[in-house]
Amino acid sequence: MPDSLAAVDQFLGQNANRFIDDLKELLRIPSISADSKYRSDVRKAAEWVHSQLQSAGLSAELVETPGHPIVYAEWLKKPGAPTVMVYGHYDVQPPDPLNEWVTPPFEPTVREGKIYARGATDDKGQMLTHIQSVKAWLQAAGSLPVNVKFVIEGEEEVGSNNLENFLEARKAQLKCDVAVISDTSQYAPGIPAVTYGLRGIIAAQVTLHGPKQDLHSGVFGGSIANPVNALARIVGALHDDNGRVQIPGFYDDVQELTAEERKEWSNLPFSEPDYLAQLGTSAPWGEAGYSTLERRWARPTCDVNGIYGGYQGEGPKTIIPARATAKITCRLVPGQSADKIVAGLKAFVTAHCRPGLRIEFQEYHGAPATVCDLNSPYMQAARDAIAAGFDRPPVMIREGGTIPVVGTFKKVLGVDTLLLGWGQNTDNLHGPNEHFSLDDYQRGIRSSAHLWATLGGR
Amino acid sequence: MPDSLAAVDQFLGQNANRFIDDLKELLRIPSISADSKYRSDVRKAAEWVHSQLQSAGLSAELVETPGHPIVYAEWLKKPGAPTVMVYGHYDVQPPDPLNEWVTPPFEPTVREGKIYARGATDDKGQMLTHIQSVKAWLQAAGSLPVNVKFVIEGEEEVGSNNLENFLEARKAQLKCDVAVISDTSQYAPGIPAVTYGLRGIIAAQVTLHGPKQDLHSGVFGGSIANPVNALARIVGALHDDNGRVQIPGFYDDVQELTAEERKEWSNLPFSEPDYLAQLGTSAPWGEAGYSTLERRWARPTCDVNGIYGGYQGEGPKTIIPARATAKITCRLVPGQSADKIVAGLKAFVTAHCRPGLRIEFQEYHGAPATVCDLNSPYMQAARDAIAAGFDRPPVMIREGGTIPVVGTFKKVLGVDTLLLGWGQNTDNLHGPNEHFSLDDYQRGIRSSAHLWATLGGR
Repeated sequence: MPDSLAAVDQFLGQNANRFIDDLKELLRIPSISADSKYRSDVRKAAEWVHSQLQSAGLSAELVETPGHPIVYAEWLKKPGAPTVMVYGHYDVQPPDPLNEWVTPPFEPTVREGKIYARGATDDKGQMLTHIQSVKAWLQAAGSLPVNVKFVIEGEEEVGSNNLENFLEARKAQLKCDVAVISDTSQYAPGIPAVTYGLRGIIAAQVTLHGPKQDLHSGVFGGSIANPVNALARIVGALHDDNGRVQIPGFYDDVQELTAEERKEWSNLPFSEPDYLAQLGTSAPWGEAGYSTLERRWARPTCDVNGIYGGYQGEGPKTIIPARATAKITCRLVPGQSADKIVAGLKAFVTAHCRPGLRIEFQEYHGAPATVCDLNSPYMQAARDAIAAGFDRPPVMIREGGTIPVVGTFKKVLGVDTLLLGWGQNTDNLHGPNEHFSLDDYQRGIRSSAHLWATLGGR
Repeated sequence: MPDSLAAVDQFLGQNANRFIDDLKELLRIPSISADSKYRSDVRKAAEWVHSQLQSAGLSAELVETPGHPIVYAEWLKKPGAPTVMVYGHYDVQPPDPLNEWVTPPFEPTVREGKIYARGATDDKGQMLTHIQSVKAWLQAAGSLPVNVKFVIEGEEEVGSNNLENFLEARKAQLKCDVAVISDTSQYAPGIPAVTYGLRGIIAAQVTLHGPKQDLHSGVFGGSIANPVNALARIVGALHDDNGRVQIPGFYDDVQELTAEERKEWSNLPFSEPDYLAQLGTSAPWGEAGYSTLERRWARPTCDVNGIYGGYQGEGPKTIIPARATAKITCRLVPGQSADKIVAGLKAFVTAHCRPGLRIEFQEYHGAPATVCDLNSPYMQAARDAIAAGFDRPPVMIREGGTIPVVGTFKKVLGVDTLLLGWGQNTDNLHGPNEHFSLDDYQRGIRSSAHLWATLGGR
């Protein structure tokens, strides 16, 4: 190990507690990008990240957008070395249902070595590892082995609507060799991973409008279509009993898994009973003919994320509701086109709707799935850095979630992205009691610090 | 017209404004029986009704129950004359969605001859007509042509759970010849009606419990059943494309309409375009092979009155919800057994549920449908009284709503019930902007006053 890396490692050990205090500060800011009530808090989080990068010694900028600001920072004092772009996000998902949190979502609390707060793992904690590692290099070694550019946005949880314009507008400034994102998970506790594939997504909201107001279900029942029953009919028809999505053409362009992938995944340690126990459910269900890992990582889905219509209070209320709404997302796999799937969903809704109802179809952001080259030198650098940070080499996996910017980076900047997840997929990201292991946080910082060295050494 | 009836008619004309003030007083009390927050207001409404009956000259009592109190009152000073029991309710439906009311639901407001408030027609306004007519007879004529007993309860909108016990316990005291209820509608403005049949009801709430908490739909999607999708599948399967309910045995015991009934109903003035325009919808939908009136009055239904699960806020949220709930009611027709239908619904839910979900099935009150004898002398007395009060004879119809006590009166007290509706089915009962025509209110009072005479004359 060169002297500079040894100095960095020592610095990391000495500053572990300070890194935790930094994380707590950021987690206390309720930067919920989906809810306009929190607009000023989202900005506060951006300013916090900006000030961290600036005080670390980078040239930093708060870039205004029509939505929430993007934090951009760079350190480019290593001519000839590769340039790495770190992407992350400082915004978080809404925290509800609030009553299921053991401690409040924006009061970070450590229990049994884990820090609990909304955003702990997705993505404040993971994103911060790269800021800390850069701080460590610049303070302990006086420079970095690579050039770095940071793009930390505040709209990842609402579709990154302004990121692509930013990337396009600053294409020249953002030129780099490879991108790094830590917004995925390890395979399991103690089994770090490099994620080489992600699912894509389409999201839509469907409202069926029926009578102009709620009607008495006795007086009027039987004479017109009930919007809730009609919406349920549409949603209920989305899958057959084999778990296959019934949107016409849904599977037409799906790239099937290779035999090697299926074999490697079947060798990963995975206990279905443990998995179900962890989720608190008694049986799996999904597309027939695929294993649970395959269904999560490489098969498309169609899930309702929320549904509402009519009376929700205590006791019965005998009405025909005026309207009903479903929030629907489909996870996409390589080959599927987001535009084609959302158009298929819209046509499906129209085809299955009862007479007399007006369909309001709202489309949100979409993103295609991505798969990266397993054999690039950057991929090897990532494997080596993680082996150093976690004391064991990573497994190569895919993940079921979506990081739309991976596709955007490829399209706009022409670079692959290294997906290096420090968290666990049991960290309740998007759910109540989200948390992040403090050990994983420190190992992530160390892996990141080594990554600058392994990338710089090539 | 005998002198006493003429004096009563004169009294009604002179006191019309006072009757409206009385109604406003009662409508200001938010007596929402379904919501325990309003418990003291429900009691206040009971006390108001009690004091009206007492000051009219009846012997009145506030009868405690495990739920809301029942107001009982009697005037029995006409030995040899028939005894009539008036039933009504002082409780109301919840007023939500609040933002759709033009004026607040508990601030009664008169616009274009109609009084707007929750309970205006269902049932405070209609019930009050009988109290006002009794007041008129006792004040203007010094006595009534019949004996009367009033049973005004506060739990009609939540299933009348304590009424049957009250009737059973006081069976001897409540002995009567016929019951009268004004909780239905006229056929149309200017076309008064006697309702000789009602649909019954069963009500249930189904919750599907999936994972122990909301899960990230990317990380976990495809591996377990989504409770919202699964609930939608059950609800969506409740009807086929011909609008037939698919619960096994649902139609087995249904008494079909007679050819005469179908013919008479087809002669009633009814414009389907006007009907749809009034509801604010563009097309009818329901069981194939039946007219809209037949489907509303004499065919069974299965409607979801409310559904909820997962995220309901602004924008998308990519979760698999932990649970989903549907509130379901079926309207029953003569022949169908409430117990059998609710058992069928429960079995249907179980049969159509996806693996790994726990079903929570909660059953509310049920009531069978009722049909009354069209040829009884009481029915003729009602026709004559309405002809006097509305200046035209009523049409004979059924209604699609449920008044469970009609069945209970038959079972416990052995009497038929005259269903004399003064309101309109367009009065938005159970919906926002519920209202009652003040002309209908006064005509109802006059019909009621004549009813005591026509019933007493036989």
